[in-house]
Amino acid sequence: MARLDQMAALSERPGEITRLYLSHEHKQASQLVADWMRDAGMEVEVDAVANVVGRVAGTSKGARTLLIGSHIDTVRDAGRFDGCLGVVMAIEAIAELHRLGRHLPFSVEVIAFGDEEGVRFPRTLTGSHAIAGGLEADTLDVKDTSGTTLADALRAFGCDPAKAFDIARRPGDILAYVETHIEQGPVLEAENLAVGVVTAISGASRFLVDVKGKAGHSGTLPMAMRRDALTAAAEMVLAIEEIGRTTNGLVATVGQITASPGAINVVPGQVTFSLDVRSPVDRTRRAGLQEVDRRLRAIARRRQVSVRMNEFYNEKAVACDQRLIRQLTSAAEDLDVATIGLPSGAGHDGLAISRLCPVGMLFVRCKGGVSHHPDESVKADDVETATRVLIAFLERVAPTGRSLS
Amino acid sequence: MARLDQMAALSERPGEITRLYLSHEHKQASQLVADWMRDAGMEVEVDAVANVVGRVAGTSKGARTLLIGSHIDTVRDAGRFDGCLGVVMAIEAIAELHRLGRHLPFSVEVIAFGDEEGVRFPRTLTGSHAIAGGLEADTLDVKDTSGTTLADALRAFGCDPAKAFDIARRPGDILAYVETHIEQGPVLEAENLAVGVVTAISGASRFLVDVKGKAGHSGTLPMAMRRDALTAAAEMVLAIEEIGRTTNGLVATVGQITASPGAINVVPGQVTFSLDVRSPVDRTRRAGLQEVDRRLRAIARRRQVSVRMNEFYNEKAVACDQRLIRQLTSAAEDLDVATIGLPSGAGHDGLAISRLCPVGMLFVRCKGGVSHHPDESVKADDVETATRVLIAFLERVAPTGRSLS
Repeated sequence: MARLDQMAALSERPGEITRLYLSHEHKQASQLVADWMRDAGMEVEVDAVANVVGRVAGTSKGARTLLIGSHIDTVRDAGRFDGCLGVVMAIEAIAELHRLGRHLPFSVEVIAFGDEEGVRFPRTLTGSHAIAGGLEADTLDVKDTSGTTLADALRAFGCDPAKAFDIARRPGDILAYVETHIEQGPVLEAENLAVGVVTAISGASRFLVDVKGKAGHSGTLPMAMRRDALTAAAEMVLAIEEIGRTTNGLVATVGQITASPGAINVVPGQVTFSLDVRSPVDRTRRAGLQEVDRRLRAIARRRQVSVRMNEFYNEKAVACDQRLIRQLTSAAEDLDVATIGLPSGAGHDGLAISRLCPVGMLFVRCKGGVSHHPDESVKADDVETATRVLIAFLERVAPTGRSLS
Repeated sequence: MARLDQMAALSERPGEITRLYLSHEHKQASQLVADWMRDAGMEVEVDAVANVVGRVAGTSKGARTLLIGSHIDTVRDAGRFDGCLGVVMAIEAIAELHRLGRHLPFSVEVIAFGDEEGVRFPRTLTGSHAIAGGLEADTLDVKDTSGTTLADALRAFGCDPAKAFDIARRPGDILAYVETHIEQGPVLEAENLAVGVVTAISGASRFLVDVKGKAGHSGTLPMAMRRDALTAAAEMVLAIEEIGRTTNGLVATVGQITASPGAINVVPGQVTFSLDVRSPVDRTRRAGLQEVDRRLRAIARRRQVSVRMNEFYNEKAVACDQRLIRQLTSAAEDLDVATIGLPSGAGHDGLAISRLCPVGMLFVRCKGGVSHHPDESVKADDVETATRVLIAFLERVAPTGRSLS
């Protein structure tokens, strides 16, 4: 917990936690993380895209490598656990094994990814994509809002962007990727559980939905002659909610809405609202979206308005590896720690890493499900429990390391 | 129609029609109107609050005065008929009687009010309130957005603000106020009628409604655990619409809505929306609002959110005078012009004048019900019809002028 406080102090603005990819604070954090890694017996390297990678070689001949970690960048005005918790816990697990003189048969790399949140550049998961060989060709050319390219920002950080495409791991070398992260949701708290085992990282679709009716004077246009875009949109919002509520494994959210012209005395002629639909099962998400499309069209037809769904984001779900799920669950059971399986509604580095190797995740209960907010809060007891589960998992993996591939 | 084009050319910005109270353009318009009044045989005065008043004395001894007119200020980027039509028609009616050598037994004042729209200052109906003796005590001290007081603006216009409270008419001197105005709604067009007789000017209540739930992550917060302020508000918007639709004589409109924090991936924790409820019958409006209140509370209770309705405007309905309604209707019938009675959902100078004397209004069909927009459109034939009805009304009033009081 003290280390998480140390990380929290590295911020663009004092009094809040804001640590963007390749910023001065990110540099400070990477140095701090590197020191902790070295103290835990690891060899440390900052790679071409500013991931901090700490390595412990395995005792087996030709040992493959287990990746564990999370990210050390944050959103603006963030909490202190999202990302950093998984990095600090991974280092602590390796440090504990180091203190105990335990040597694992497989190699371990603890990775502190530098860009999970995607706040600074119009890209996200840059660090994990580079490791997994999934960087897009134009990645180095994207610019932040001040016009700095990612390549220039990497150079300023001390990295060699020319090597960004060379750090991809070979799938045959990697056993798996396992990440610990705060849940960012209220399920574990509601279930009174310290930890949970992630079954899948949800896929997500995002839309802006345009509804067009006809504006008119709020006092003079009779109700029966209205083509009110907002009342139509209200019906659509409720249909979306109902589809989310009645479809197992689906969440559907309207987070933004604007009515035009937006005057108190004018019947809205146009409404735009956002739609975010997620599911750990892509088939469920697709079916849910078809139902949303069908219902929205029916509402529009009946109300004589038009509706158009404009998709601007679509990310497939990543199922966690069944063997990793079992091993994480068994590790908890061995310690008499009760767990449940639950999906991750939020995205994580595992999304990018899944093209490289099996992915597993352990969730830690967070207060009220609050995340991306200064109120983000985790119990020290839960962190200790989760760290013990992680260590037990590492010891459990040890004898049969190669079978994870 | 040519005069309306002349008025339309007097604008703050070329290419649109914007003529605010006490502006340079208002001054030009008042001079133009004064010229037309003089040409029609009237004595003209610009009063202490910049109403242009043209007077023709009645032939009866101790003749009382019929007020006719409308306003010559506009909203920003307005149409050319809202207000000006009633002023130009009133002048034309008096001009026609003047050309015919007809003398009415009662006096007539044609008034071009200067501030019906209330765009420049945080007051509305300043001109008609002054005539009716309803000016608020602090009226002269209110400021426009540049910090100019109404008193200073009146002085710059050439008026004497010290006399603003002295121009109120004595109720015993005034027969009635009759205004012609475009409908600003689609009813006459739908009924295929050139003119309609207004039964009442609707009362209106306006609210900002705050709905508070709890924000959360769109991916991680299960549907069943949500207290979504926007889906609650959507249900409220539909309840309001239903109450408007099912209550005879009520219109209810939500024109503005904002969701906070307003991110695509956050379940809204708070929503604010506007509510505008109008009816020509105050009892209907009050009952409708009680029903809205009841329904909104029930929705909030069921969804575990809070709701608060904050009223910031409340204006009672003004019933038009039954005798004036009959005389306007009979005048139309005499000319074989079919009419209907219909309420005015929009406010007019008659709201203010109603404290002084009986009020009557004639509506003229407008294209698509569009108003407060450059597309505002009225047929020349309809204007001619309405002018003939107004003249017939004046001749009908003539013999029994005093009985109107």
